[in-house]
Amino acid sequence: MSEASVARGEEMLALIERLYPICRSITGQGVRDTLAIIAEHVDLRVTEVPTGEQVFDWQVPREWVIRDAWVKDDDGRKVIDFAAHNLHVVSYSDGVHRTMSREELEPHLHSLPDHPDWIPYRTSYYNRGWGFCLSQRQRDALSGERFEVCIDAELIDGSLTYGEVVIPGETDEEIVFYSHVCHPSLANDNLAGLAVCTFLVQALAGQRRRFTYRFVFGPGTIGSITWLARNEERLGDIRMGLVAVLLGDRGPLRYKQSPSGDAHIDRIVPRALADRGHEAIVEPFSPYGYEERQFGSPGIRIPTGRLSRSANAGYPEYHSSADNLDLVSGESLAESLAVLERVVDIIERDACYLNLAGKGEPQLGRRGLYGDSGGKRVGNWEMAMLWVLNQSDGSHTLLDIAEKSGLTFAEVAAAADNLLAAGLLERLHDSNRKQQ
Amino acid sequence: MSEASVARGEEMLALIERLYPICRSITGQGVRDTLAIIAEHVDLRVTEVPTGEQVFDWQVPREWVIRDAWVKDDDGRKVIDFAAHNLHVVSYSDGVHRTMSREELEPHLHSLPDHPDWIPYRTSYYNRGWGFCLSQRQRDALSGERFEVCIDAELIDGSLTYGEVVIPGETDEEIVFYSHVCHPSLANDNLAGLAVCTFLVQALAGQRRRFTYRFVFGPGTIGSITWLARNEERLGDIRMGLVAVLLGDRGPLRYKQSPSGDAHIDRIVPRALADRGHEAIVEPFSPYGYEERQFGSPGIRIPTGRLSRSANAGYPEYHSSADNLDLVSGESLAESLAVLERVVDIIERDACYLNLAGKGEPQLGRRGLYGDSGGKRVGNWEMAMLWVLNQSDGSHTLLDIAEKSGLTFAEVAAAADNLLAAGLLERLHDSNRKQQ
Amino acid sequence: MSEASVARGEEMLALIERLYPICRSITGQGVRDTLAIIAEHVDLRVTEVPTGEQVFDWQVPREWVIRDAWVKDDDGRKVIDFAAHNLHVVSYSDGVHRTMSREELEPHLHSLPDHPDWIPYRTSYYNRGWGFCLSQRQRDALSGERFEVCIDAELIDGSLTYGEVVIPGETDEEIVFYSHVCHPSLANDNLAGLAVCTFLVQALAGQRRRFTYRFVFGPGTIGSITWLARNEERLGDIRMGLVAVLLGDRGPLRYKQSPSGDAHIDRIVPRALADRGHEAIVEPFSPYGYEERQFGSPGIRIPTGRLSRSANAGYPEYHSSADNLDLVSGESLAESLAVLERVVDIIERDACYLNLAGKGEPQLGRRGLYGDSGGKRVGNWEMAMLWVLNQSDGSHTLLDIAEKSGLTFAEVAAAADNLLAAGLLERLHDSNRKQQ
Repeated sequence: MSEASVARGEEMLALIERLYPICRSITGQGVRDTLAIIAEHVDLRVTEVPTGEQVFDWQVPREWVIRDAWVKDDDGRKVIDFAAHNLHVVSYSDGVHRTMSREELEPHLHSLPDHPDWIPYRTSYYNRGWGFCLSQRQRDALSGERFEVCIDAELIDGSLTYGEVVIPGETDEEIVFYSHVCHPSLANDNLAGLAVCTFLVQALAGQRRRFTYRFVFGPGTIGSITWLARNEERLGDIRMGLVAVLLGDRGPLRYKQSPSGDAHIDRIVPRALADRGHEAIVEPFSPYGYEERQFGSPGIRIPTGRLSRSANAGYPEYHSSADNLDLVSGESLAESLAVLERVVDIIERDACYLNLAGKGEPQLGRRGLYGDSGGKRVGNWEMAMLWVLNQSDGSHTLLDIAEKSGLTFAEVAAAADNLLAAGLLERLHDSNRKQQ
Repeated sequence: MSEASVARGEEMLALIERLYPICRSITGQGVRDTLAIIAEHVDLRVTEVPTGEQVFDWQVPREWVIRDAWVKDDDGRKVIDFAAHNLHVVSYSDGVHRTMSREELEPHLHSLPDHPDWIPYRTSYYNRGWGFCLSQRQRDALSGERFEVCIDAELIDGSLTYGEVVIPGETDEEIVFYSHVCHPSLANDNLAGLAVCTFLVQALAGQRRRFTYRFVFGPGTIGSITWLARNEERLGDIRMGLVAVLLGDRGPLRYKQSPSGDAHIDRIVPRALADRGHEAIVEPFSPYGYEERQFGSPGIRIPTGRLSRSANAGYPEYHSSADNLDLVSGESLAESLAVLERVVDIIERDACYLNLAGKGEPQLGRRGLYGDSGGKRVGNWEMAMLWVLNQSDGSHTLLDIAEKSGLTFAEVAAAADNLLAAGLLERLHDSNRKQQ
Repeated sequence: MSEASVARGEEMLALIERLYPICRSITGQGVRDTLAIIAEHVDLRVTEVPTGEQVFDWQVPREWVIRDAWVKDDDGRKVIDFAAHNLHVVSYSDGVHRTMSREELEPHLHSLPDHPDWIPYRTSYYNRGWGFCLSQRQRDALSGERFEVCIDAELIDGSLTYGEVVIPGETDEEIVFYSHVCHPSLANDNLAGLAVCTFLVQALAGQRRRFTYRFVFGPGTIGSITWLARNEERLGDIRMGLVAVLLGDRGPLRYKQSPSGDAHIDRIVPRALADRGHEAIVEPFSPYGYEERQFGSPGIRIPTGRLSRSANAGYPEYHSSADNLDLVSGESLAESLAVLERVVDIIERDACYLNLAGKGEPQLGRRGLYGDSGGKRVGNWEMAMLWVLNQSDGSHTLLDIAEKSGLTFAEVAAAADNLLAAGLLERLHDSNRKQQ
């Protein structure tokens, strides 16, 4: 890993560390505070969508305001305290302030018997109620029969908040990246995704690009539904999407396919992984997961894949206080970013070319494009040119050629550049069109 | 296995026991006697087709009448006796009554050197002749030089007999089950198939069904050819066929594909097997076997598969006296029947639906269709609904969804029923149409 | 291996032995001498294409005339001598005659440190220069500081030479075999290919054939480009091509697919290999190799595969003096020839038939086409007929049927012949048409 990569990994870790203590939920000040910090790094436009607005089958929910929460025992000691860890309150809990018996309190408590030191993460978004999460050890240590319970919270008419960065390209056709912003103090899920996307924006900002890239940082489910509903008339411009989340833990990178399983994005990401030397772990689409569920719904069907590391309960620390800063590494973050840069590179450069000298092979030697001594094996450089020439009959793209030849996309694309410069190729069209 | 299943297994065994002693052939009284017993259980219509009637490339053969048959040695002892086992006479033998030398007799004897206690089953339908089958031990014990040989049999102008049960449904479109009735005292081949089909008729009779189901009990080869020829103008109504034979032995259930290998029936039966917990053993079509040969012939091509256990020489007792009552088990029969009920269930319920709220996911929670605490894994119940919603874009059927999701067909179909009731789905058409 | 095969193997070895000493290159007298010897066996037409003629992107190069070449040391001893082995001179070297220092000589010397006794084969076709090849041992033994270097060679305006044999068939549609003739004293690469093709011509000459077969013996790359350019208006008549080269070593036969990977030839050759009992080793197309590169170029795209044994650096002796007469065996040559005869047999006989009695199975017994005792297993003979009858619905060819059934092509084709003779089949068309 290069020194620059190590440095970027450290910077991403620093961003995650700053965002970690904030108590986020699907709506509310925590999301606004998070987006404000991201806006220090990239040109972020924030949208507030008022409570009650109809978004497809849903309504924008009320905004959650949480000020304090605790449980005190008979002795007045705070035995559970939101100030100590914001996972202690079930997210989106109703306000409550009462003294109650242990028997009454018990159904409102959540803990993990198998991981007695971890606090679970629980939400109650669409069914009203309240609750506390605590470690099993804390729970076992609770004593006394009466408890004073306080959640100083309310649901108000406010708004749902999301942020967007748009990096314009030569055309209005868009590639959308989505990363969820609604989880409280969970480092991998999904401060890691937010950090990697933020730094990907920085990396792309300086380049000339064919496509427009849009990064959306919004809450899960209701956030992507809201964004899709508000942008419905523009969705036809979106070529493909990628949900980039949970990218910081030490597990291997894995790609989840779009619903069709054979969209352009479904070939691009595995190629980028392979070209970076990763064994490409590819999972078929399933309707459970993150925002790929909404982008891939039958009335939307934007071809959208997902890149993550140990996503969706694939790691024991998932949705618990153990998904903390120790779980994420600078190296993992930097490698995730490097793969995404490859993904963008393939999206930008993949195209369909036509061999203009397609009767037999053209004489590469007299154009200085071929090694000079016959009788020996040729290298990847020459092989890439032979492959591009042979396959450029108008029905194969550079990505097709990389897949067939076993060469990296970068080798194939470089060969196409050389042959284009030598006047042997014509660029027909970018290849995404044919894939959709 | 449920008590009801065990009871049904016993009833099927009892039916097989009653049918076992009858000497059946491709024509004649044995077939009529067999159908008469089946008619005690189900509403059977019997058809007699006169000898000589042209059926496609064939003519209905004469009817075989067998009264007695034996071989006596020098001492007048019956050394082979049809009265002891009806496999002793080659089926469809000509009559003969003569004294002859051992040398003359020998070419007319059939035995199994590798299984010295078993009597083989041999036929001589389309090449005139006569013969006796006997165990190798019997043969080795034959002594003397002269034998009196008697087969009191004749071929007369009569008829070929088959039986049919029709269970009408909401439409005239038919599903046909065929099971052969021509074999003499062989228990698995095919009294087992006849018993399972008879009890399947009983199970279906009480239900409301979309399709019409027809069960044909007729002789092999000439029987199905005769039935197809006599029903030629109606074949267009038949959606698919299933040959259900040899279903009583203790071997695993196995499915043989239709000629195309990708007909609707080719997906339905393996799904039913998998959903009942069987490892789905699927064999490609081959033009050797039972009535799937005729239903799958190029001028007919009704998509027809076959469900059997150890079919076609797949078990040592095949076509011998060892295919007797000991070979079949009530448990095997009951499980074969249970799988066929699943097959019918999938045929009836498979359909293509349209998600009416396809932009993003609909909010299942407010419709009471979703678990109430966020942050935890969802169960098969919710997954089935998410799968049906995501895939119901008009191009996937419930069977497609079961295959993709790894859920059972029943789980997926139940989810569709729930979503239909909630007004979130519309039924487009039953899915068989598109598969053909 | 039959006695006749052994004899043919010996004859092919004898031809290779005669051709071995000739110094061939892409142009010049060596090619002419080689073709003259082949012309003693088959009816060869030789074409001379003048230097400078434009052929697609290339020009026909000048003709190489080599008379002598050597390097003498200080003592006047010839330390490298073309007369001893014609690999000693880099093929197509410019003339040179000068005394020079060892330092100046060194960059012009080529040897193989890993195989110290072998002389490498090197060419300098399209970059002017000169050089010597020698064994590493020879090189290590060079002593002294001054060397007299002489290559008595020149490039003259002359011609490029290729030979063709055409075996006319019932139609003008052609099958083309190509085997390169440009390598000097290398036995497997490609005197083996030339010998096998020559004897294949002899084998075909006596038969009645549907297709016209053309064998081209020409130089590599520029030879096939020249032949394609000169025959451009006729290329539409060519159904498929096969490059038949390097067929004499002791490695297994391997087939390299055409660019599409699913052309008719891509199924024919693996079938022929399997039917001769070979494990079919099939490699995907790659744009490196022999004349399949030119036949498969995007402006030509004649479906062309390649049959060889240890082609393209797949054996250590490749492109060195160790590719000598010891490397090739009569048995390998004879088996290569036998496989190619099967290939031609499939090309000739593959066709699509229609079952004229397709409603049910026709009654084979009364036509004498079926075994006479029922109840026993049927053999390949009957199975082949059942397969042909079942599949001959106008959409399957005999090759399809062989692939599906696991029977050999010969068994399936014989069944079709029988059924055709019995009036049960009609020949619709030869099957190549549909594959292209």
